[in-house]
Amino acid sequence: MSAPSPETIDTVLRHVDARLDRSRETLFQLLSIPSISAQEAHRADCLRAATWVHDRLTSLGFRTEIRPTPGHPVVLGHLDGPADYKGPHILFYGHYDVQPPDPLNLWTSPPFEPQLVDGPRGKRFVARGAVDDKGQVAMFLEALRAWHDAGGGIPAKLTVVIEGEEEVGSKNLEPFLKANKAELKSDVALISDTNMWDVDTPALTTSLRGLTYVQLTVKAAKRDLHSGLYGGSALNSINALTRILGDLHDENGRIQLPGFYDKVKPIGNAQRAQWDQLGFSEAAFLDDIGLSAPVGERGYSALERLWARPTADINGIWGGYTGQGAKTVIAAEASAKITFRLVSGQDPDEVMAQFKTFVSDRLPEGATAEFEGGHGSPGVEVNADSVWVRAAQAALSEEYGKPAVLMGSGGSIPVVVSLKKVLGIDTLLMGFGLDDDQIHSPNEKFEQRCFHHGIRSHVRLLAKFAAG
Amino acid sequence: MSAPSPETIDTVLRHVDARLDRSRETLFQLLSIPSISAQEAHRADCLRAATWVHDRLTSLGFRTEIRPTPGHPVVLGHLDGPADYKGPHILFYGHYDVQPPDPLNLWTSPPFEPQLVDGPRGKRFVARGAVDDKGQVAMFLEALRAWHDAGGGIPAKLTVVIEGEEEVGSKNLEPFLKANKAELKSDVALISDTNMWDVDTPALTTSLRGLTYVQLTVKAAKRDLHSGLYGGSALNSINALTRILGDLHDENGRIQLPGFYDKVKPIGNAQRAQWDQLGFSEAAFLDDIGLSAPVGERGYSALERLWARPTADINGIWGGYTGQGAKTVIAAEASAKITFRLVSGQDPDEVMAQFKTFVSDRLPEGATAEFEGGHGSPGVEVNADSVWVRAAQAALSEEYGKPAVLMGSGGSIPVVVSLKKVLGIDTLLMGFGLDDDQIHSPNEKFEQRCFHHGIRSHVRLLAKFAAG
Repeated sequence: MSAPSPETIDTVLRHVDARLDRSRETLFQLLSIPSISAQEAHRADCLRAATWVHDRLTSLGFRTEIRPTPGHPVVLGHLDGPADYKGPHILFYGHYDVQPPDPLNLWTSPPFEPQLVDGPRGKRFVARGAVDDKGQVAMFLEALRAWHDAGGGIPAKLTVVIEGEEEVGSKNLEPFLKANKAELKSDVALISDTNMWDVDTPALTTSLRGLTYVQLTVKAAKRDLHSGLYGGSALNSINALTRILGDLHDENGRIQLPGFYDKVKPIGNAQRAQWDQLGFSEAAFLDDIGLSAPVGERGYSALERLWARPTADINGIWGGYTGQGAKTVIAAEASAKITFRLVSGQDPDEVMAQFKTFVSDRLPEGATAEFEGGHGSPGVEVNADSVWVRAAQAALSEEYGKPAVLMGSGGSIPVVVSLKKVLGIDTLLMGFGLDDDQIHSPNEKFEQRCFHHGIRSHVRLLAKFAAG
Repeated sequence: MSAPSPETIDTVLRHVDARLDRSRETLFQLLSIPSISAQEAHRADCLRAATWVHDRLTSLGFRTEIRPTPGHPVVLGHLDGPADYKGPHILFYGHYDVQPPDPLNLWTSPPFEPQLVDGPRGKRFVARGAVDDKGQVAMFLEALRAWHDAGGGIPAKLTVVIEGEEEVGSKNLEPFLKANKAELKSDVALISDTNMWDVDTPALTTSLRGLTYVQLTVKAAKRDLHSGLYGGSALNSINALTRILGDLHDENGRIQLPGFYDKVKPIGNAQRAQWDQLGFSEAAFLDDIGLSAPVGERGYSALERLWARPTADINGIWGGYTGQGAKTVIAAEASAKITFRLVSGQDPDEVMAQFKTFVSDRLPEGATAEFEGGHGSPGVEVNADSVWVRAAQAALSEEYGKPAVLMGSGGSIPVVVSLKKVLGIDTLLMGFGLDDDQIHSPNEKFEQRCFHHGIRSHVRLLAKFAAG
């Protein structure tokens, strides 16, 4: 079998159109499994999700295994493709785990009971994981299904890696890649876990921020104290924690960790010009999330701050009495979870060390600080002028009738770094999410239109690769 | 009947000694009722505790009622005393409600299953409310019981007011006093809700701090956001909250609310000298709670900071993801509970207004601040040279063989202000708690020795009053 003919591609695309409802129902099966990797109580659900993916790949002719790790397992599948295949060996990566759905009370429907609802852009799917990343993994699997059922077989040589720890830092993935380096040998990686520019404009993502995450606990007295009998002469752990964390940024929104910006690369003029011409509306961006005023580091545009500048965000904080009414207590300890988003050049371990210095410099005498976590991954830049990027641009242009935008992303996909480091391969980031998909938030959704075009785009991209 | 004879007093005191075990068992009944006024789920328990107090008073010959309020009810009892009584009409005030027991995991026994355990000073009672205030109320009731059973009757004219909202700010108590002003007419108030100087040294408390309490919620975006896709260009409510609250104190431990110290009275030289001669050991105070370094406002001794200087303590804070593992979210809102302890001269309403100005001065554009609570009471100073104080000093000297210390307290008993304002009467604060009783904390306890001496001291004080 040589490269697929235009007629075959059309047949496969028509098959995608005809079975869209079944594709959605298939995705809804996966969305019904609460595979929350951060929560021990959902360990069995993570395995259920892995098994579901395993069974789908097996039914498509893959040699598939559920490989254990010290955490949640990795689903690994191999397909040799046509005997005369001359294209690249493609490694597709995705993840079956999802973020916790809290706060539950803000969901309009239960997060693991996927709903098909009407929205301003047509039908949409509402569920935790609808787009991140179950929906995007399902697009690729449904493209394979269409080739398998209507195109005379899947036209490419593929390795599929679907992990279960992306939402908790993928700490077992790189060891897995290293341990299976020979088996995973391939030419290019493909990931669908990013966004489009907008609902009508496809995009390829060529830069990603990294991150490092840490949980800080400040401990003061050995027990909780009465704020009347002790207040004024006893250290308050929450006062101390807020005083430390309140100093994370200076007046100009710059992060005050010592040396934090030393390795941050300045944004090049060409890059700046390309992003400026995208016509990003900060006002619309803010309006969508209910904010009115720009925030963040002075001297940079909103897109620059999102794509090319590091951040410090407190993701959670707790301590003392948080129930109904008043309890006049001085808490013995208080904690916070903090994420630093990093850009290309910054080292996650160095940033963690800087954070520890920052905290200890501000820790009151008598208090102690404990740190948990600290795993991280650096930011990454993808070569925007590769044969793979050109193939994906062509596939997207045919599908949407307009060229794909090359954009950055403020999010982190640590596996891109690992794939380069361990397997030596570049990654193509072709995603179909939208900015308002509310990933990691209540009422996460995925537009059916994006899902549909996404499946078709993957059908086209496989044909491009098969063409060699 | 005239004033009790020394023989009668001795008989009553011996009766107290003989029935100490029964007195403790009686207290344990009350401690078993989880009358947590802050929590709606315990409304029925609060009524159970009120009913228990009602029944005790009735059995002592009081005309007793459970009077409803918009919150938890007040137990009100009247006893005319002997026909020829010439002493003061005494109003005894206490409260049957307790603080929430959180954090539960730090209790060595369930907080509402009172335990009799061995400690370094003999037997002690461990339970929420053991000393604050159920144990101290029970001392007074047991003194009445002893007079009733062994002394030929209770020798004084009494009104007893036991409320159920002290731990949530007593907001319905002052309206209750106003509405029942004629019925509550009396000469002096007596409260047991304070501490001794140490286990061997009795004390009368002549100054109390006031307080004002507020819950602050900072709201930013209209939903939780992904910290990668939005971080750097979207306002983070927790970052904003810590930045505001981290600025509560300056480098010298002074509170930065505008005008906060304007009405704070300087500590007089005589007062300072009296407190200095008490020989308070800050090192021992800190060691007891597991701290090593002095904290708080510079330029004042530890006792001065506790008794005569105002404070700002964050009692609780929460926002974002606080579960297991990581969730890289930018939370839409974050909250904190804050208490300001006030000293004589400061107005709680003015302090609340200052806090609102402090917050709004620091609130980032696009954020909103919401305030709940704000109820408060001013600090108070009791005339240390009254006939009532002298009577109590005599009773305590006889019981302990040494004079009572006149001390301040950092805590707040708002009713003292209300009793003066509404009924025009002074309050005698004679309490038997110890600094290490862990009130408002896990494993709250009351020394049996303090309980026993406390009952006996109340027996003696009633005799002093009966003597006219």
